[in-house]
Amino acid sequence: MKVIDGGFSNIAGFTNLGKYIGIKKEGKDLGILYSEKICSAAAVYTKNSVKGAPLYITRENLADGKAQAIVVNSRVANVATGEQGKMNAKKTTELVAAELGINQSDVLVASTGVIGPQLPMDKIESGIKGVKNELKPDGDFAEAIMTTDTHKKEMCVDLGSFKIAAAAKGSGMIAPNMATLLVFIATDAEIASDKLQQALKTSVDKTLNMTSIDTDTSTSDMAIIMANGSAGSVDYSEFSEALDYVCLELTKMIVMDGEGVTKLITCEIKGAKSEEDAKKAAKAVIDSPLVKTAVYGNDPNWGRLMMAIGKSGAELNEEKITIHANNEPIVESGKASETYDDKKLTQLFKDNKEINFVIDLGAGEASATAYGCDLTEEYIRINAEYTT
Amino acid sequence: MKVIDGGFSNIAGFTNLGKYIGIKKEGKDLGILYSEKICSAAAVYTKNSVKGAPLYITRENLADGKAQAIVVNSRVANVATGEQGKMNAKKTTELVAAELGINQSDVLVASTGVIGPQLPMDKIESGIKGVKNELKPDGDFAEAIMTTDTHKKEMCVDLGSFKIAAAAKGSGMIAPNMATLLVFIATDAEIASDKLQQALKTSVDKTLNMTSIDTDTSTSDMAIIMANGSAGSVDYSEFSEALDYVCLELTKMIVMDGEGVTKLITCEIKGAKSEEDAKKAAKAVIDSPLVKTAVYGNDPNWGRLMMAIGKSGAELNEEKITIHANNEPIVESGKASETYDDKKLTQLFKDNKEINFVIDLGAGEASATAYGCDLTEEYIRINAEYTT
Repeated sequence: MKVIDGGFSNIAGFTNLGKYIGIKKEGKDLGILYSEKICSAAAVYTKNSVKGAPLYITRENLADGKAQAIVVNSRVANVATGEQGKMNAKKTTELVAAELGINQSDVLVASTGVIGPQLPMDKIESGIKGVKNELKPDGDFAEAIMTTDTHKKEMCVDLGSFKIAAAAKGSGMIAPNMATLLVFIATDAEIASDKLQQALKTSVDKTLNMTSIDTDTSTSDMAIIMANGSAGSVDYSEFSEALDYVCLELTKMIVMDGEGVTKLITCEIKGAKSEEDAKKAAKAVIDSPLVKTAVYGNDPNWGRLMMAIGKSGAELNEEKITIHANNEPIVESGKASETYDDKKLTQLFKDNKEINFVIDLGAGEASATAYGCDLTEEYIRINAEYTT
Repeated sequence: MKVIDGGFSNIAGFTNLGKYIGIKKEGKDLGILYSEKICSAAAVYTKNSVKGAPLYITRENLADGKAQAIVVNSRVANVATGEQGKMNAKKTTELVAAELGINQSDVLVASTGVIGPQLPMDKIESGIKGVKNELKPDGDFAEAIMTTDTHKKEMCVDLGSFKIAAAAKGSGMIAPNMATLLVFIATDAEIASDKLQQALKTSVDKTLNMTSIDTDTSTSDMAIIMANGSAGSVDYSEFSEALDYVCLELTKMIVMDGEGVTKLITCEIKGAKSEEDAKKAAKAVIDSPLVKTAVYGNDPNWGRLMMAIGKSGAELNEEKITIHANNEPIVESGKASETYDDKKLTQLFKDNKEINFVIDLGAGEASATAYGCDLTEEYIRINAEYTT
């Protein structure tokens, strides 16, 4: 497997665009990804009970496992907008379908931005006019879906027999709203939509769903994959592994561009009684404000790791707990390790942009890894100073 | 019911002290609360699976529902200290028992501070020498249990036939460690330990257990109540209501002295399918970093409240959701209310030190209230800059 430059431009048969239509004050705010052929497609959505209007339309249109285009706007999330919001999301797919000469039911839709306001449909309508001629292999889709991201996030892997390309957005704030996470993946692999759904869910559960910047689950999160089949049939496990890799790399890109983030924190839990326990404990560590601020401030306060796994509800055997930070032993048998030294841990935090905690709960054989980041004054500033 | 000045000094038969024994760099760090008579006693403890050594000894000594003294040190939490830690906690109770001429099994022990280091037993031992003569009705117990609190927290209610007094510590950080919450309550009511346990659990579940400053559950949390019976028998429901009031006031004191806090946030959930759902939704709101930063920054981003109740997992009927902030309608039928105005909400946040969200989920009849605070740069600074 080779990682190659660029994103969707590498997948033959896909074109895209990113353009400014006046929803943001400045910067591209409408993106369209289009496939010449109808694709097998699959998606996973936010588990938030309050869901954005576009999710209802996309889920409806994906019921048959087929799709040909995705339209995305940034700046307005179209959430908490009632029936009008759903009508607007549907209308958007109709406008794109008419313009591209495809079926409305093959157009998926996503929105990201502030919760509450209605979409400016006049701008959407005039913005979609003429898009057919603006689509090109190396369009600016990845740029148009950004809200407060500091850079665009796209990637592509080449496995010889097929490729997978992806674009994502998430969570650096300039005009803050929700840290919505949107992921769009395209492949030339030939793979049925049920298999695609299975592979996507498996990958996302291990990567994006094990990620947290601030514990707040957006109402608009969505990951969509489209396979146009032009590379012919592929080995499922090879495809699935490549998709795991893509989702993991996107996860890291998103976290490192999180609001005010200076360091990536990964937490691998081992020795858990069950995978569920391992996930709970790993998430408790990366979600803990006290762990996050300690890493940010190079504070060797490892007691906060003990606190976090303890509050997680995961079964643990306190006398058998071991903790390593970037391979350095910190805790052995539930107490400070013999070689532990405050100054060494402070220096380790200072010297590394990626802090990797490996924690053995001493309760079993299961393991899991979660991905997070530190918590800084900048996060507060970004999120407190939106309209004031 | 009258709230009266002072704390334990109001309850005849109790004496206490707070003194400096050299564990902190400066300030009182050893507290003892003593009852002339043996008391009925009850306690609730942290649910963190990693527990401080003192909790094991206190639980053991409270098995008979009786106690006569409590000894507390601040600065070192005696957590993640292995067998040595438990021996040190037990030794502390033995020293106090010998000094006061009471049974070791009637001495309860608590510690609060940094996780990891062992207790300095030489200082504990020499500090406990002579305490019998230092106990007095208006001692400095409430001051000695502080770590990073900015002021001592004590109170007393007088119901005519009996009184309840309490001291608490919690969560303003100067030399940060865990935001341990310790609550000690004394009463002259005559009440059996099983009834005392029931009343304490009921009160704590509604108040302290519905409180969060930063979602991190300490390894040392403990609330203890001692009843010396000198006021004679009391009406249980009158006692229970008075105890509710005491726990609620302590809750508010603790939250308002939280790390970097500028505003108290309460969230009352109504219209929930079950009490459990109401609690989940209320906690999700007060725990959300995006809600907390919006309140701090006077940002009228009410979409974050929709996000928080949505992610909580509580059943809700989106089209029926209503939200009020300090009685001002914000959301009706799941959308911005007709009279909603960004500027008005910003002003409301600016004008009030207490922000009270009332949210109706439109899914049933159950309700619950949670207590929290805003999230500020000062919280990050306090928790990141411990040793650096």
